[in-house]
Amino acid sequence: MSIIKSFDKLKEELVKKSVRKKVAVVWAADDSTQQAVAQTLSDGFVEAVFVGYVRELQELPLLLPHLDHITFIDAATPDEAAEIAVSLVREGKADVLMKGLINTDNLLRAVLNKETGILTRGNVLTHISVAQLPAYDKLLLFSDAAVIPYPTHEQRIKQVEYAAAMVRSLGIDEPRISLIHCSEKVNEKHFPHTAGYKEIAAMGQAGSFGRCIVDGPLDVKVSCCRESMVTKGISSPIDGQADVLIFPDIEAGNTFYKTITLFAGAQTAGVLQGPNAPVVLPSRSDSTMSKYNSLAVAVMSLTH
Amino acid sequence: MSIIKSFDKLKEELVKKSVRKKVAVVWAADDSTQQAVAQTLSDGFVEAVFVGYVRELQELPLLLPHLDHITFIDAATPDEAAEIAVSLVREGKADVLMKGLINTDNLLRAVLNKETGILTRGNVLTHISVAQLPAYDKLLLFSDAAVIPYPTHEQRIKQVEYAAAMVRSLGIDEPRISLIHCSEKVNEKHFPHTAGYKEIAAMGQAGSFGRCIVDGPLDVKVSCCRESMVTKGISSPIDGQADVLIFPDIEAGNTFYKTITLFAGAQTAGVLQGPNAPVVLPSRSDSTMSKYNSLAVAVMSLTH
Repeated sequence: MSIIKSFDKLKEELVKKSVRKKVAVVWAADDSTQQAVAQTLSDGFVEAVFVGYVRELQELPLLLPHLDHITFIDAATPDEAAEIAVSLVREGKADVLMKGLINTDNLLRAVLNKETGILTRGNVLTHISVAQLPAYDKLLLFSDAAVIPYPTHEQRIKQVEYAAAMVRSLGIDEPRISLIHCSEKVNEKHFPHTAGYKEIAAMGQAGSFGRCIVDGPLDVKVSCCRESMVTKGISSPIDGQADVLIFPDIEAGNTFYKTITLFAGAQTAGVLQGPNAPVVLPSRSDSTMSKYNSLAVAVMSLTH
Repeated sequence: MSIIKSFDKLKEELVKKSVRKKVAVVWAADDSTQQAVAQTLSDGFVEAVFVGYVRELQELPLLLPHLDHITFIDAATPDEAAEIAVSLVREGKADVLMKGLINTDNLLRAVLNKETGILTRGNVLTHISVAQLPAYDKLLLFSDAAVIPYPTHEQRIKQVEYAAAMVRSLGIDEPRISLIHCSEKVNEKHFPHTAGYKEIAAMGQAGSFGRCIVDGPLDVKVSCCRESMVTKGISSPIDGQADVLIFPDIEAGNTFYKTITLFAGAQTAGVLQGPNAPVVLPSRSDSTMSKYNSLAVAVMSLTH
C-alpha cells in the first residue's frame, strides 16, 4: 500500500481494499449523518446497522439503493439505541460505533458502562483527530482536542500507542510522534508533564510502541517544519515531519483544532480510540464531509 | 484616525502621525535588529539610542543617513547595556526598550530588578502578540504565548487591561476581548479558570477596562467566526469578531502562535506590556519584518 496523504487517497485505498466493516449508527436522525453513511455505503466500505429512528430511515430514498448492506434495529429512544449499538460491538456484531442525533454524554455513558460497556480495563478513552492541511504535505494526527482535559502520564502513553497504530493504518511504517510543549526544554518545576515526555520518548526508542520515532518536548512549529528546527538550533529525530502531535492538555489541543479549521483551511476527521471498537463522535456542527472522513478513518484503522 | 487592520496600515498611520519615540536598543549586534531599527528610522517614527556594540554600529552604512536621530551609549557587555537601557527608561529618557543580541533572561533580569528595574508594583509583565492573518479581516491580538506559564486570575485581569489599551491604539474604540477555553461552558470543577472568566466578563461590563466587550469562556472558532457561533447556538456580544484572544495558559497561547505562523500564513509582532515602557523582545528566529512590526506596535501603543 502506498502512503495515504489525503482524505481523497484514503477513500481510494478503502475502495481498492474492498473490505466492508460493520458500523452501528445510533439514532441517525440528522441529515449529515444519513448522507455520510449513505456515501460510505455507496463507496462500498461500510455495512450499516441503523439502531433506532428506523421507520423514517427505511423510507429514506438516499438509502434505498443500499438495502442489501443495511440492517435496521428498532429502539424506542436514543438512549436505548446507544445501549443496543454498544451491545452489538461487545458481541462482535459491529466493528465501529457511530453517533447520530444523541447527546454525547449519553452515548459515552453506554460506552463506559462497567457492566455492559466496551472499554476494557487498562484502556483509555481518548480522541484522535486527523487533519488535512493545505500547508502540510501529509495527514497530521493529533490528540486530544475533545475528551481528556489534562492527560495523566499513563493516559498520554496510551494516546501515543493508539495514534501510532492509526498512522500505520495510513501506510506509514515508522510514525513520527511529537510531544508538544511551548519550548524544547524539559522544565520539571514549571511544566511537570515535560519530565514525563522524556520517559515516553525513551519508551519509544526502546520499542514500546513498535517501530516509531517519539520525541519531545517540541513546539508545533519545530515539529512540523524542518527549517524552524534548524533555525532554532534544535536537533530532533522528528526532523520537522511529525505525523502526530500529542498536546499537553485539551486547551492546547482544542486551540490547535479550532485554529487550523478556521484560519488554515484544514479538513478534519476524528475518532475515539480505546474502546473495543473505534467510535465516530462528530460535533454537532461537523459537516457531512467531516463525518464521512471520520468514518473512513475509523474503518481504515481496523484494516492494518 | 481610521482603524488599523494591517501592518502596512500601521506603518502608514505612524508616518502620518509624525511622532518620534525614543527606543533604547540593547546590544544591536545582529543583522535583523539593525535592519529593523534602520527601517523605523527611515520611516521617521523612531529616535534610536543604541546601547552597547557601539563602535561597530557607528560604522554601519545602514545607519549613516540617520545619525541625526541616533545616540550611541557605550557599554562593556550586553548585561551592562541592559542595565543602562533600563535606567534610560526609568529616567524617562527612552520610551521603548528593545532587545538585540542578549539572552532574554538577562534582559528581563534588568527589567524586573526591584531596585533598578522598570516594573512598577501592581503591574504584571506579560506578552501580547499581534497577528495579521490572511483569513481574518483585522489584526488579532493574543496573550500570552511567551512569558506567563499559567496566569493567575489577577494576571489575567492585567492581560485584558493591557490588550484593551493596545487595541484602542489601533483606532478601535470598543475592543472585543475573548477569554479562550475549549468550550463555552463554565466548569469550575474541571476547569477552575473558567469561573474567573465570568468575573472578568462582568468587570468588563461594569466598565473596569474602559469601553469594551469582554466575554468567555469561548473557543477560538466561536470567538472569530460569527457563522460558527450561530451554528453552535451560542450567543455572545463578541459576535465572532474578537480583537483579542486571552488564552488560559502558555501551552494554548504558544500553540496558537506557532500554528498561525506555520499553517495559516500569519505575520506577527509582539511586545511585553506591564513595565514602564513597552519592551520589544523578539525570538531568536524572528525576521527583520517581525522585529520592525513589533517596534511599530510598541510605538503605536504609546500614541493613544
